[in-house]
Amino acid sequence: MGWMKDETGLGKRKANHAPLTPLTFLERAEKIWPEREALIYGQERFSYADYVGRIRRLVSALAGRGVAPGDVVSTLLPNIPAHFEATWGVPGAGAVLNTINTRLDVDTVAYIFSHGESKLVLADTQFVPLAEAAKKLMAAEGMGEGPEIIEVVDEAAGFAPTGRHTTYEDFLAGGDPAAPFVMPEDEWESLALNYTSGTTGRPKGVVYSHRGAHLIALGTAAAWPLGHWPRLLQIVPLFHCNGWGHAWAVTVNGGTAIGIREIRAGAIYDAIADHKVTHFGGAPIVLQTIINAKDEERRPFDHIVEVFTAGAPPPAAVLAAIEPLGFNVTQVYGLTETYGHVVECVWKEELWGDLPQEERAEIKARTGVAMPMIEAVTVLDPKTLEEVPADGHSLGEVMMRGNTVMKGYYKNPEATEEAFAGGWFHSGDVAFRHPDGYIKITDRSKDIIISGGENISSIEVEGVLMKHPAVLLAAVVAKPDEKWGEVPCAFVELKEGQTATEEELIAFCRQRLAGFKTPKKVVFRELPKTSTGKIQKFVLREAAKTL
Amino acid sequence: MGWMKDETGLGKRKANHAPLTPLTFLERAEKIWPEREALIYGQERFSYADYVGRIRRLVSALAGRGVAPGDVVSTLLPNIPAHFEATWGVPGAGAVLNTINTRLDVDTVAYIFSHGESKLVLADTQFVPLAEAAKKLMAAEGMGEGPEIIEVVDEAAGFAPTGRHTTYEDFLAGGDPAAPFVMPEDEWESLALNYTSGTTGRPKGVVYSHRGAHLIALGTAAAWPLGHWPRLLQIVPLFHCNGWGHAWAVTVNGGTAIGIREIRAGAIYDAIADHKVTHFGGAPIVLQTIINAKDEERRPFDHIVEVFTAGAPPPAAVLAAIEPLGFNVTQVYGLTETYGHVVECVWKEELWGDLPQEERAEIKARTGVAMPMIEAVTVLDPKTLEEVPADGHSLGEVMMRGNTVMKGYYKNPEATEEAFAGGWFHSGDVAFRHPDGYIKITDRSKDIIISGGENISSIEVEGVLMKHPAVLLAAVVAKPDEKWGEVPCAFVELKEGQTATEEELIAFCRQRLAGFKTPKKVVFRELPKTSTGKIQKFVLREAAKTL
Repeated sequence: MGWMKDETGLGKRKANHAPLTPLTFLERAEKIWPEREALIYGQERFSYADYVGRIRRLVSALAGRGVAPGDVVSTLLPNIPAHFEATWGVPGAGAVLNTINTRLDVDTVAYIFSHGESKLVLADTQFVPLAEAAKKLMAAEGMGEGPEIIEVVDEAAGFAPTGRHTTYEDFLAGGDPAAPFVMPEDEWESLALNYTSGTTGRPKGVVYSHRGAHLIALGTAAAWPLGHWPRLLQIVPLFHCNGWGHAWAVTVNGGTAIGIREIRAGAIYDAIADHKVTHFGGAPIVLQTIINAKDEERRPFDHIVEVFTAGAPPPAAVLAAIEPLGFNVTQVYGLTETYGHVVECVWKEELWGDLPQEERAEIKARTGVAMPMIEAVTVLDPKTLEEVPADGHSLGEVMMRGNTVMKGYYKNPEATEEAFAGGWFHSGDVAFRHPDGYIKITDRSKDIIISGGENISSIEVEGVLMKHPAVLLAAVVAKPDEKWGEVPCAFVELKEGQTATEEELIAFCRQRLAGFKTPKKVVFRELPKTSTGKIQKFVLREAAKTL
Repeated sequence: MGWMKDETGLGKRKANHAPLTPLTFLERAEKIWPEREALIYGQERFSYADYVGRIRRLVSALAGRGVAPGDVVSTLLPNIPAHFEATWGVPGAGAVLNTINTRLDVDTVAYIFSHGESKLVLADTQFVPLAEAAKKLMAAEGMGEGPEIIEVVDEAAGFAPTGRHTTYEDFLAGGDPAAPFVMPEDEWESLALNYTSGTTGRPKGVVYSHRGAHLIALGTAAAWPLGHWPRLLQIVPLFHCNGWGHAWAVTVNGGTAIGIREIRAGAIYDAIADHKVTHFGGAPIVLQTIINAKDEERRPFDHIVEVFTAGAPPPAAVLAAIEPLGFNVTQVYGLTETYGHVVECVWKEELWGDLPQEERAEIKARTGVAMPMIEAVTVLDPKTLEEVPADGHSLGEVMMRGNTVMKGYYKNPEATEEAFAGGWFHSGDVAFRHPDGYIKITDRSKDIIISGGENISSIEVEGVLMKHPAVLLAAVVAKPDEKWGEVPCAFVELKEGQTATEEELIAFCRQRLAGFKTPKKVVFRELPKTSTGKIQKFVLREAAKTL
């Protein structure tokens, strides 16, 4: 297309084409800001010179241990310094970073070790037993030996080394603080392997490229925007989409990452007050934690903290409570398959700034619009792949296309083809488009209930149930029905000390919902959850079949 | 290197790999912010819906006129709306944008038309005679017919149409406001052809790719940083490195570009006060213009304006005068060959914030460090390509490598190979490295004077001469000398009403410089300048030979 008549001598060469990789941001920060704080964890503070020196040691120690470019290195770590270092140092060794959710069960960890052919795992003392058990299971089931364990001892957290493994600090001590990074020769080379915590079946291994990681970082720095020298509290676990890419993004402008082992209100307030946190990402539950802090946990601060929240729309009550405390909350959305956030509910102060709080909250609960690192995010009819009208109600599937979409699922070409059918990544999330183009997710596609040919959004029904003063949590699934095909069935967890009857909740819903959307059955029970706190609807779906 | 054991199904495809191009930023802004101001020019205000509608009309009108992907379309325009629209619409048609310096002579414009095989030129009424004369010259010399002229009538500036050409508004009227962009299929496709205004010989045509333009824009948004909704006054001519890429960068966060036809103090102050300008780029002469504004031109404003200045280090006196007026000045550096700025004198407030004004100014006069869109900028020995020590004095040549380095010179593979020798782009600028890695440009390599084996920086000698109260401008070049090989020879323009003698200036220099650096000859005369205001040292070098 846009090729000129004569392109002689205008090809790519070393001087004018460098593979995109986040590693260049770190090398730049090391050169420009050796004296600046790169990382804070409790009483520990690392300058960029210290931090990158440790990362280079890790690069060199990995190579010394036989980790070759393309090999997989795992982590079982909280957001402590070793995890930040691994986020850079594993790709810096040309290897592929496999951060494992520390809340997973032994069986799943063994599966991931085996499926990814992990060579080495950096495990916090707290998770060494998990890694050991997974290796034992692998041995018992003939799945191979599993990765070598390097034990990360977090003395600040009060853990004593087990004595059974090389410690991370000993491992680093053998490395060279001036070792060069193994830079990609092609930006499509693999940088990370992140297993999804799927609600059904075995987790799938999502593969990231150096190109995608560079662009998620640069796009986040530009669009959040991170500004000069951000101070980013890493609440998002680094094992979720590499902490949504924030450990990479924060270096673009020489910022400071702040590690945190456990997400408690006091620790968050301390970080904000003591370390002047300017940005963090987190689920709405984190906002709840901040709001519900005890008086003795709260600390005064006099700046605004920018918060990206993902996982569920921030409830209006949460926004109303947290914004006066000094937090500006923006909803973002993405999946492991999109390197984390690629949709942002961009705020338009001139249009919405003067609206009443309730209307502002409703807008902030929208999912949003594409961030600049992704080429397109929209809502398509999953059959025809045509865009649904922007009418505020027509449902379709959220689909994406662009450079921050995964390379594919590791060793799973069938699932990859399915996910990319028709030239789009199929998110599995159901949404409509507002007339101004902002999308609003209403459901996971498999959570849609089809009753008498009508689509019912389980989230809509759950939202109504959650408004009942006695309800703590609600999950609505399809129950097979001879007449209607499916009908909504609600599972409800009540607040401590509260009571409600099935009839009362059904009547409550009928007042607020169309008849076909009203649950035909309500069951009171504790809801089953995954290691990341997602409700396991497949368990409830099974349960509903036999009711 | 970082390829996993099994990459089956993990290749690039439409869903996960989109060619990088600035056009995606504009399409995103059009969708998210249709109602926001995209462009202001005098009394005219264009929303993103209006602006992109006009750009799409241009795309469609160009295609209707037979402009095919890969064809070259020229401009001879001030920073008025048509120029912003062309900056998007020509690449949006898959064509190659050739912005021509409006101060060039007929001969050079004819050369550019002919060398670039321009199909069409958008020319402001003021420059229609220049375009016509260039075409006439081409015809007379058998260089072909030259581009069709589309006349841009700027009524606000008081120009009446010549009546000899299709007007731009008529041209747009024939276009489709919903026409799709011709997106690149490969991000290496060509997007712009910018001729350097070399101080010797024919200008060379620098070719930009869509990839490079995307990255200069995103990197600038992240690193300046532009923040939310910047309001950018486009003082840098759009014919200089496409206005350093700012018209692209400002759209990343839905910002507003403000056009300006002539760089006068009153117009700048009006734009800042009326349109709340947050950012602009400009040469130090622009800063002088602001400082020297007449009282009736000044307007009060209560925010800080971020300024990128390039072309020469901002003099200490200028910084001292302008910063209290509400401007924060940062020096940047780059060349047409690097898409504009790739080096920024990044300020470290915690290290330098409390220094006396004079020391702060000295630091701000450094050239700086690499911006995040370029992989490496350093100072190498031009013979060995080894990095010079960071000792604050060892001289070498500034060289770059990365994605915002040109594809090469159009139809000039020899010059391209020379510029890229050894895997680096050779800037031709001479610099040393401070111990902290900040580079400081001292000279153009051809401006270095070698006297008795010692290198003399002409800029250093000029800097001393400029401190003399009677001197307005000084240029120092080599004069052949039998004994020393070369000796410094100064050409000096005095301030109006001031006098000085040769002996006096030589004595003034001798007090401040090593003997071998002191000019052996001083000539008082008006200095010859290029169309962009650069002093034509080659003219003086010739003159010095016969003195």
